[in-house]
Amino acid sequence: MNTKKDFQIALAKYLSEKDFIYGPEPELYEPVAGFYSYGLLGKAMKNNLENDIRNMFIDNNFFEIEYPIVSPQIIWKASGHLDGFNDPVVICSKCKSSFRADKLIEEQTEIAADSFKDEELLETIKEKNITCPNCKSRFELEIKRHNLMMQTKIGLDTIAYNRPETATTTYLPFKHYNTFFRGKLPFTVFQIGKAFRNEISPRQHLLRQREFTQAEAQIFLSKEQKENFELFKDSQNDFLPLWTQELQENNKPPKIISLKEAIEKKILKNKAYAWSINLTYKMFISFGIPKEKIRLRQHWETEKAFYADDAWDLEIELNSFGWTECCGIHDRSDYDLTQHQKFSKQDLSIRLENGEKIIPNIIEIAFGVDRPFFALLDLAFFRRDDAKRTVLSLPRKMSPIKVGILPLLKKDNLPEKAIEIKKEIEKKFRTYYDESGSIGKRYARLDAIGVPFCITVDHQTITDDTITIRERDSLKQIRLNKKELLNKLEKFFNEPDFFE
Amino acid sequence: MNTKKDFQIALAKYLSEKDFIYGPEPELYEPVAGFYSYGLLGKAMKNNLENDIRNMFIDNNFFEIEYPIVSPQIIWKASGHLDGFNDPVVICSKCKSSFRADKLIEEQTEIAADSFKDEELLETIKEKNITCPNCKSRFELEIKRHNLMMQTKIGLDTIAYNRPETATTTYLPFKHYNTFFRGKLPFTVFQIGKAFRNEISPRQHLLRQREFTQAEAQIFLSKEQKENFELFKDSQNDFLPLWTQELQENNKPPKIISLKEAIEKKILKNKAYAWSINLTYKMFISFGIPKEKIRLRQHWETEKAFYADDAWDLEIELNSFGWTECCGIHDRSDYDLTQHQKFSKQDLSIRLENGEKIIPNIIEIAFGVDRPFFALLDLAFFRRDDAKRTVLSLPRKMSPIKVGILPLLKKDNLPEKAIEIKKEIEKKFRTYYDESGSIGKRYARLDAIGVPFCITVDHQTITDDTITIRERDSLKQIRLNKKELLNKLEKFFNEPDFFE
Repeated sequence: MNTKKDFQIALAKYLSEKDFIYGPEPELYEPVAGFYSYGLLGKAMKNNLENDIRNMFIDNNFFEIEYPIVSPQIIWKASGHLDGFNDPVVICSKCKSSFRADKLIEEQTEIAADSFKDEELLETIKEKNITCPNCKSRFELEIKRHNLMMQTKIGLDTIAYNRPETATTTYLPFKHYNTFFRGKLPFTVFQIGKAFRNEISPRQHLLRQREFTQAEAQIFLSKEQKENFELFKDSQNDFLPLWTQELQENNKPPKIISLKEAIEKKILKNKAYAWSINLTYKMFISFGIPKEKIRLRQHWETEKAFYADDAWDLEIELNSFGWTECCGIHDRSDYDLTQHQKFSKQDLSIRLENGEKIIPNIIEIAFGVDRPFFALLDLAFFRRDDAKRTVLSLPRKMSPIKVGILPLLKKDNLPEKAIEIKKEIEKKFRTYYDESGSIGKRYARLDAIGVPFCITVDHQTITDDTITIRERDSLKQIRLNKKELLNKLEKFFNEPDFFE
Repeated sequence: MNTKKDFQIALAKYLSEKDFIYGPEPELYEPVAGFYSYGLLGKAMKNNLENDIRNMFIDNNFFEIEYPIVSPQIIWKASGHLDGFNDPVVICSKCKSSFRADKLIEEQTEIAADSFKDEELLETIKEKNITCPNCKSRFELEIKRHNLMMQTKIGLDTIAYNRPETATTTYLPFKHYNTFFRGKLPFTVFQIGKAFRNEISPRQHLLRQREFTQAEAQIFLSKEQKENFELFKDSQNDFLPLWTQELQENNKPPKIISLKEAIEKKILKNKAYAWSINLTYKMFISFGIPKEKIRLRQHWETEKAFYADDAWDLEIELNSFGWTECCGIHDRSDYDLTQHQKFSKQDLSIRLENGEKIIPNIIEIAFGVDRPFFALLDLAFFRRDDAKRTVLSLPRKMSPIKVGILPLLKKDNLPEKAIEIKKEIEKKFRTYYDESGSIGKRYARLDAIGVPFCITVDHQTITDDTITIRERDSLKQIRLNKKELLNKLEKFFNEPDFFE
């Protein structure tokens, strides 16, 4: 494959054919950009990923909630989304097509325009002679602001919106958290759920959808706790690939720095934030994204929100799109609870042990689940042209099907024996039984959907109860008694590269 | 408690205080009827339930998909929801309040009006002198049809809807299923996800929400396979509590009948349907709903949809609301695929091995996840007044917290020892560590949120490594070496009532 674009097109086609991702939906009717389905295998993989995220947060004492997707207007007024969550749109004076102004500029001039104000956008469009991609005419000299929220109604006339993020809805039950955690900060909560953004021109496959799945975790804490974060000491000697604003400005690569050093040198602003960014990094590594494909990029002072105290992105280097933002870690100060206190007219403060009343700060880990999902497939999808086989080298724990069960032949009692073994294994590992076609073809089919292990039942199995296990990437095979099978498989799934 | 209503109010209050269900949301602002949140404990329990549903379907060879929530109008035109999915509304001639006509009639006269046509509704309102509950005035003599779908927009002007059910969206990738299952019926798929119904007057707590979670499973099959369903033979001697139309008409209770007999006597129409209703029944039993609280109610000929070949509901007897529909099992014939073939103008037929081209039939198991969730809590919530304690007797596997870890005292190294044990257990079971307050108070707190087992660490633990486990419902305690702990717990969770 020659270019990223070629790779991306080949990957999207592959993911559809192999039942990972269908779409854009509705495929059966007229597809609409920005909507995809998780297919018969993709959904199983997404569940594996979501369970991993869930377990990682729960192991670190975060509690999950599920808030409704649809909420009335006032919440989005308070959060700032009603007034500020919009895209600049220009309309062609002739064909009346509409386009996102900043993306249009980027596409035709390579000027990064996403933080431009309306006047700057208009000026650039005039100056650089940007024309309508459809009919080459000039644009109307006006920027329209298109709100990205999907509006709907509750009852007969209450205006409401499909949420544009999970985070805001996670802040709202704050008083319940206060009771549950008995008033003792930090409170740690998270939510995994759907969010909606009515983009003008959605692109980049799963990365920029109109409907997507978010995972967002919050630490509610005092300013003092940011500096004296108890859990920090256990992770202070962990290392992070930090790409500071300074390194970015000087075109230098990220530096591997310990948390301790990052705090001492004030690269990261406080210990609670450092712990959070480290938790995020460890989480993405544990998904099975290779270390060398991850970096942590500091937001420039100019791109940070006015209330943000510290902000970094976790980026992954994708074959399809190059370095891509896949998670944001933000110190949001006391902005959110202050806003909701103001708009709800309810007291959202907490009394500390020293008697002081404060509005807690929020440190937030926020990402679209679809992004690490896409990254895992993007990185697993490569063709071994020498062996003329297509392998999806997914991390074992992410594979939708864990074990293939194949009788060597469709006779001599081999299928019955194989089904017997399947029944023993499938209580613990999702299996797929396949008896049709040559053994080589069946291996190939299961390699292509990322099944890490195939168990073959042959004539020797009938006589001595041994089977062979074949590992997907190394193509190594080992023979063992079927009594050892479950234990062995458990080991293989606990140790990502182990096979012997 | 005297009445169902009292029980229901007490339960809703309890579920909020104990962090199972918050709402109606947005609680922090002005609540809107029909929206609830799953709280810090409720969400963990909902995950347990959803995983159980998922595993049950997967064990029976169903494959999961995830289709977008938002879909353009044409899909809901084809499915029939755009034209037929609406409620009859009447408007007060004086105060202009609007009400659901059929519910209003039911409330003021106890006449079941939900299948009434518009004229019948109007006639009954006139005849029975039904007046506005707000101002006692008469109603305008017109029924307005209120569509229950929440409308929104994609892009600038594409009309779309939040789906009113998951099922329709599960049918749509039918061609992908055909490829995946290599054209061999039956195909078995399912989806768990959010759906939205803009009810005029949502009631009954979690049972009739405007936003809810559905689990719907489909078997695509030929007519011939309905009669010769391979899996039937393994379950033909299972028994079901069938409440036929005839028994209902004669005010007789359900009869316990084997699947075999039900087919022979034509109580259930075909073997595939019988297998599906049996799977549903087994699933609800496995959630931990007691057998005596479940019955299967046949739809009357008059209430069945015109395309439905067979239709039964699984009902649960709730303390809050009496017998309540919690799942529907429907033989939908070839209605859905025929509709989507017609509207999409794509060929959705399949060629059978005998060369015949057919549109597959669909047998569907459909329920709101919120209903068994509510049922489990409704049935678990009772007060043991003799012991002056409140216990949530949830099935062990549904409890959000599995094990409480309690040092007897906050000194003498007991907390350290307890935390050590916690670390060993929490890899397998969700634990909650509590050291504050008397041991009695801590037991009470954990009983109240349904924790099945408490482990207490005392001075003897320091000398001989033994701990006590206390079981929530029987209050029995056993002492054992902490080495045996994990194995014991695993046994307890595998065998719902075992404790020794």
